[in-house]
Amino acid sequence: MNNINIKITTPFWLNYFKLIKNEMLPYQWAVLNDTADIVIEKERDAAYIPSQKSHAIENFKIAAGLKTGHHYGMVFQDSDVYKWLEAAAYCLKRFPDKEVQKITDDLINLIGKAQESNGYLNTYFTIEAPTRKFKRLYQSHELYCAGHFIEAAVAYYEAVNNKHALNIACKLADHLCHTFGNAPNQIHDYDGHEEIEIGLLRLYKITKNKNYLNLAHFFLYERGKDPEFFHKQVSADPDKSVLIEGMDNFKASYYQNHKPILEQTTAEGHAVRVTYMCTAMAMLANEADDTAILEAAKKLWQNITQKRMYITGGIGSTVIGEAFTTDYDLPNDSMYCETCASIGLIFFAGNMLKNDINSHYSNIMEKALYNTVIGGMALDGKHFFYVNPLEVNPAICHTNPSKSHVKTTRPAWFGCACCPPNIARLIASLDSYIYTIKNNIIYCNLYLANCCTLSVNGKNIAFTEETNYPWDGNINFTINTARQFGLGLRIPDWCESFTLKLNDKNLLYNIKNGFIIIDRNWSVNDQIELILSMPVQIYTSHPSIIADSGKLAIQRGPLMYCLEGVDNGSNLHLLYLSKNAIFTEQQKNSALGNIITLETTAQKLCSDFNWHNHLYYNARHIKNKFIPQKIQLIPYYTWGNRGENEMRLWLNEYNS
Amino acid sequence: MNNINIKITTPFWLNYFKLIKNEMLPYQWAVLNDTADIVIEKERDAAYIPSQKSHAIENFKIAAGLKTGHHYGMVFQDSDVYKWLEAAAYCLKRFPDKEVQKITDDLINLIGKAQESNGYLNTYFTIEAPTRKFKRLYQSHELYCAGHFIEAAVAYYEAVNNKHALNIACKLADHLCHTFGNAPNQIHDYDGHEEIEIGLLRLYKITKNKNYLNLAHFFLYERGKDPEFFHKQVSADPDKSVLIEGMDNFKASYYQNHKPILEQTTAEGHAVRVTYMCTAMAMLANEADDTAILEAAKKLWQNITQKRMYITGGIGSTVIGEAFTTDYDLPNDSMYCETCASIGLIFFAGNMLKNDINSHYSNIMEKALYNTVIGGMALDGKHFFYVNPLEVNPAICHTNPSKSHVKTTRPAWFGCACCPPNIARLIASLDSYIYTIKNNIIYCNLYLANCCTLSVNGKNIAFTEETNYPWDGNINFTINTARQFGLGLRIPDWCESFTLKLNDKNLLYNIKNGFIIIDRNWSVNDQIELILSMPVQIYTSHPSIIADSGKLAIQRGPLMYCLEGVDNGSNLHLLYLSKNAIFTEQQKNSALGNIITLETTAQKLCSDFNWHNHLYYNARHIKNKFIPQKIQLIPYYTWGNRGENEMRLWLNEYNS
Repeated sequence: MNNINIKITTPFWLNYFKLIKNEMLPYQWAVLNDTADIVIEKERDAAYIPSQKSHAIENFKIAAGLKTGHHYGMVFQDSDVYKWLEAAAYCLKRFPDKEVQKITDDLINLIGKAQESNGYLNTYFTIEAPTRKFKRLYQSHELYCAGHFIEAAVAYYEAVNNKHALNIACKLADHLCHTFGNAPNQIHDYDGHEEIEIGLLRLYKITKNKNYLNLAHFFLYERGKDPEFFHKQVSADPDKSVLIEGMDNFKASYYQNHKPILEQTTAEGHAVRVTYMCTAMAMLANEADDTAILEAAKKLWQNITQKRMYITGGIGSTVIGEAFTTDYDLPNDSMYCETCASIGLIFFAGNMLKNDINSHYSNIMEKALYNTVIGGMALDGKHFFYVNPLEVNPAICHTNPSKSHVKTTRPAWFGCACCPPNIARLIASLDSYIYTIKNNIIYCNLYLANCCTLSVNGKNIAFTEETNYPWDGNINFTINTARQFGLGLRIPDWCESFTLKLNDKNLLYNIKNGFIIIDRNWSVNDQIELILSMPVQIYTSHPSIIADSGKLAIQRGPLMYCLEGVDNGSNLHLLYLSKNAIFTEQQKNSALGNIITLETTAQKLCSDFNWHNHLYYNARHIKNKFIPQKIQLIPYYTWGNRGENEMRLWLNEYNS
Repeated sequence: MNNINIKITTPFWLNYFKLIKNEMLPYQWAVLNDTADIVIEKERDAAYIPSQKSHAIENFKIAAGLKTGHHYGMVFQDSDVYKWLEAAAYCLKRFPDKEVQKITDDLINLIGKAQESNGYLNTYFTIEAPTRKFKRLYQSHELYCAGHFIEAAVAYYEAVNNKHALNIACKLADHLCHTFGNAPNQIHDYDGHEEIEIGLLRLYKITKNKNYLNLAHFFLYERGKDPEFFHKQVSADPDKSVLIEGMDNFKASYYQNHKPILEQTTAEGHAVRVTYMCTAMAMLANEADDTAILEAAKKLWQNITQKRMYITGGIGSTVIGEAFTTDYDLPNDSMYCETCASIGLIFFAGNMLKNDINSHYSNIMEKALYNTVIGGMALDGKHFFYVNPLEVNPAICHTNPSKSHVKTTRPAWFGCACCPPNIARLIASLDSYIYTIKNNIIYCNLYLANCCTLSVNGKNIAFTEETNYPWDGNINFTINTARQFGLGLRIPDWCESFTLKLNDKNLLYNIKNGFIIIDRNWSVNDQIELILSMPVQIYTSHPSIIADSGKLAIQRGPLMYCLEGVDNGSNLHLLYLSKNAIFTEQQKNSALGNIITLETTAQKLCSDFNWHNHLYYNARHIKNKFIPQKIQLIPYYTWGNRGENEMRLWLNEYNS
């Protein structure tokens, strides 16, 4: 990113930053050190997932030779630490803090001690299986963990200008450059979980070491050339013990290994893996001016967002493989919609914007952020969803094992703890997603109050943005630098009318690729006033989506709304809403924070029949009637914060 | 059963008997002998289920010492042979055939040779694990297989009056009586899959050997007294290898082992197991006049049929554990609804009627039989469903692994092949479900054309029933014996008007427990004419069933109807039906046999919007309209016989 300094001032996000600094990071640090008093929950009923403790820091101490013992946890347990470190780095940039920096510096020292002399870094293999390094790439997550460490090191360098982590990262990356490649003595292939490519490309941007760019290119372009690669590696490994139980039955497409990436036109397999792969494709396209990989990334973007995405920005329609299924298969009560997958979608969108300015990337980024991502975290910052359903019936989730992965309230931590630190690092680095700077134009992807100084064509531009977004659409920019540049204002896809003024006078405009570009020679104190009309919107879905057919979804601004039982009683499936419903907006400061709730009158389907012991009955003898019922909708991201109850986002349509 | 001779003459069922005799039994015999040219399908994507061949007869030859080699297949592979033998016995009773009897006699000889000298009979343990007999009862299915052999032996004895199989069965049962019980040197517990109890109770009825009654009583009453029993047995087994992969994680309730059976008030766990347990409970109640167990069975009956049953008579809401979940959780596209579970429900109903004359047992028996059970078999008699969905979208079944258990057309055979021979033995013994005789009254549970001679209070009663049921409700009885007895005519739950005449004169009647009892001194040639009005009925569901909410199901007589894509195009979820719809009945002789189809006009939801690349859109800008579309419904049992396509039973309700 070209941003030099962005200071976010929106209360909505300041609250999250404080949560991250004061709650999430200390809490997650305690978890990683096994000093938090919590119940660690399996994210699904898989026997192989350990859940007694994190042990992640202890693993590093053992690998570093400071303690004795065995590795504990997932084979990719190290990545929890790296993602925490990355989030801590972003946080240190915003809130410098010597005590925190002492912790992170010590952690980096520890990681350095755990690194082997040749640069190899992975506590599981160092402690438990030194002879099996890089021999089970589909399960080992060695390159995945390496990628996360490199990302953390780059972030730490950018945050505190300390090169220690970066040096460890370069030593690790150099080891990988030595080990992987097309030469006869090198390993010819790639990791089962994309991530190293992102790390290498970030490291390349900082170091300009072409080896890192070339290795990322190699990993991406090798992928899928031989769909049998992982099986061949397993056959060649004399040690037949598996690293992760249950991963042997997945098909090549689970790993996006079914065909070369340039030939992939549909999003297949594990949703997080897909988005990480696509993010790296978009990054490589940008760094290497690779139009072929950009076109491939666009196809995957279109398939995901036009055929396989929930209205919350959630992706992944099945728990089995946490994966995509097929176009328009979007069940609301059995889906996966992993928090990390929506985070990955934001990474993907952010990097596509650097290649291809178009507001549809920003729109989806906003949708995923304000719904699935922040919904993945409780309002206390200490409880998290892995799975983000659009419809929940607690009795069914507890008794139907096909839905046992759908938690009805947010657990404290997971045995496979990818999501909590991923939320932390995304939100802590939110400033890097607000603007895209290209060709002397600053494009505003996300609206939120901030004061910033950005570098445009090597010159600093300062301005201030004031807004109470996402609660209203009034946005004011005050320019603080007199200079010629373009300001690109996104008109969100949900917005149907707006007014735009420059220094209090209406401005003529064109919308191009979803942005209004105001390109002029700005003066200090120039004022832009953009008022995005933010009424309650009612959405319907593509006719091929069976699960949403005959249903409506309520949105206001970027926020999706839902019903909870605590406000509306049980049997939410009996409530019907007209698309002509009139909503009242209520500003409320409640257990859910300072939010806007929506109230309207729905129609509850009632029958005059005493069902008693009947399951089915002759419809012609039953008079159904609709009885008006006041309902209250809350922002989707706030659901599940008031105990266990029913929740529903898509409401039946009432044809009045 | 007290029936002496029932000759079914309805073309509908004669066709099935011919299918069983001419297609199913020879075909299944070829499969069991590995001489059929078929693809054996895994019934779900479980790696542990073998699917290359049946090998079931070969296992007996090896156990008998006639061949060398290893056991192949499921640990309960023997039961496929026993269920085939039982079906063959019923068929021999109806169609005596020396060639077939040569095969069955030889098979019984083979089974006798495979039996150990102490009476033990199970090819897996004899061949592979003689030291582990009865040491892993939760997985071993040893008593389950024994029960199936005993059932087959009883059926064979009743069919051909040959005691060879019965002698083997008694020797086996005696061995079990010796091995299991409360004495210190006996095994104190029971099988993971109920079935032996049914076998023992049938054997008791024939032999009057009280030991068999007592052992059935013991098995039933021990169940659930110690929910930890199975785990304790596994701990005590020095050999830690499992018999069936994937069964270790099931809870006690999977085995109905979570509490003593008298305390069980909800149907929990594996649906087939539940129905077999309940069948045995009803049988024991009848044989031993056990009112406590009868009351417990009634509670389970009510829970199943009033809270946890599909309108097709299918049961089991989830593939995981093939199990019940919770009240009103009845998803239509991801359920299990195993064919065997509905067969078990019929066993349960038939035996409850012997204790408690009430037509609700007969109604459910009829519902399960005419919908899920015969729907479990293709019209060619050679392809079978294990899972019976109420809604199918082929693209989703192929790509969403949460629905990979839902087959879109009937496979030829399964690695776990419980269902095909179970259908055969049920249909082949259909005559035993038609009437229940109690207190000098003959209750008609099922209507179908037949000539019969029944034994009532030791006296023979002969009559003839003529009807074209299930296609129309005109039923005529001609009495052929002059005697005092009662005839109980069931008024089906779907029937709302009927006329009843005795010798052409209207008859006054009362309905008691769903039956009209005509108790009189009959003369030869007395005529009863019962005309059940059989219009198309439209059903709605209990408001707590989320999956059926706002939907209607179409029924005519006992048959549920459904839509298929081949008749009605794709996107069946966009079709809406008014509950005031008028149907035209069409008698058709087509690829689906000689059936009645229903035609009506539905409303197809169409929008004026070009959805193109949109997934979601502002509903207020889209004009939806309903366009009338002629639709054709076919009997549910005939779906999936014309290639792969969409299917839907519950149709959206159109509020006109």
